[in-house]
Amino acid sequence: MAFVMIREAKEGDCGNILRLIRELAEYEKLSDQVKISEEALRADGFGETPFYHCLVAEILSAPGEPQGPCVVGYGLYYFSYSTWKGRNIYLEDIYVKPEYRGQGIGSKIIKRVAEVALDKGCSQLRLAVLDWNKRAMDLYKALGAQDLTEAEGWHCFRFEGEAMRELAGK
Amino acid sequence: MAFVMIREAKEGDCGNILRLIRELAEYEKLSDQVKISEEALRADGFGETPFYHCLVAEILSAPGEPQGPCVVGYGLYYFSYSTWKGRNIYLEDIYVKPEYRGQGIGSKIIKRVAEVALDKGCSQLRLAVLDWNKRAMDLYKALGAQDLTEAEGWHCFRFEGEAMRELAGK
Repeated sequence: MAFVMIREAKEGDCGNILRLIRELAEYEKLSDQVKISEEALRADGFGETPFYHCLVAEILSAPGEPQGPCVVGYGLYYFSYSTWKGRNIYLEDIYVKPEYRGQGIGSKIIKRVAEVALDKGCSQLRLAVLDWNKRAMDLYKALGAQDLTEAEGWHCFRFEGEAMRELAGK
Repeated sequence: MAFVMIREAKEGDCGNILRLIRELAEYEKLSDQVKISEEALRADGFGETPFYHCLVAEILSAPGEPQGPCVVGYGLYYFSYSTWKGRNIYLEDIYVKPEYRGQGIGSKIIKRVAEVALDKGCSQLRLAVLDWNKRAMDLYKALGAQDLTEAEGWHCFRFEGEAMRELAGK
């Protein structure tokens, strides 16, 4: 019988994480936007000042079973800041491979992120969800999250590429 | 004649920054949510591992004018991460006191944040705007930002307080 371990990602996991990032973007119908490389993930997550932190869900096989450990999900987060409440955590991505869903692996990942948040003195855990992803929206609401776009009218804005260079006058 | 300087905040600015944070929350009609203290701002922004960075807009008076320098606006940001594009910057707050608006101070602050972003190898500058704040929405769109809630359907979600403790099982 196999079982699941949620653990901190190591640098050697970056290849697996990148494959899962691509799968998630395909599911979100936005895969043309993925430009990141394994090298960037290694440099940005495992240097002196990490730009992100990551948990992975690993399936461990029982002694005697042929396959080795296998990464089937991840949760990638960073520390952010609220000028109302102070330190918080932003969960950028959470993903479990389709064939491993329905076993509570996603909930285990998000619970572990909430534990890290409390341990680090954070008062909020934020994330963004696509409005057509009803399964995810319902899960987060059931777990106690509030939809701030619905409740207060917050819209996510982004500058990038040429718009950002123009803004900076470069 | 007075002129404006955009500079990095120092620890001694935290009292002024807190007053401006409260003004912004009042403008956003959400001032009951502000729980932060000057001490937390000092500890979180000016320790060994800062949780945020901040720029302030300071009005300098000409020699001979009686009033001293005066902080009239701020932009508070932190480094965040996109699994599609890598490093980016999140502009949590940008605010200019009403009596100093219309002089381009807000644009100067956001431009300086975009410069920092490019210098640090960030490819995106993200922020959130309230949907009734048409003036701000129009400004960011005119500067080249995309409204991702409108374009792709992203909703902002947040766990906090009891919901976060329950999630962490604490």
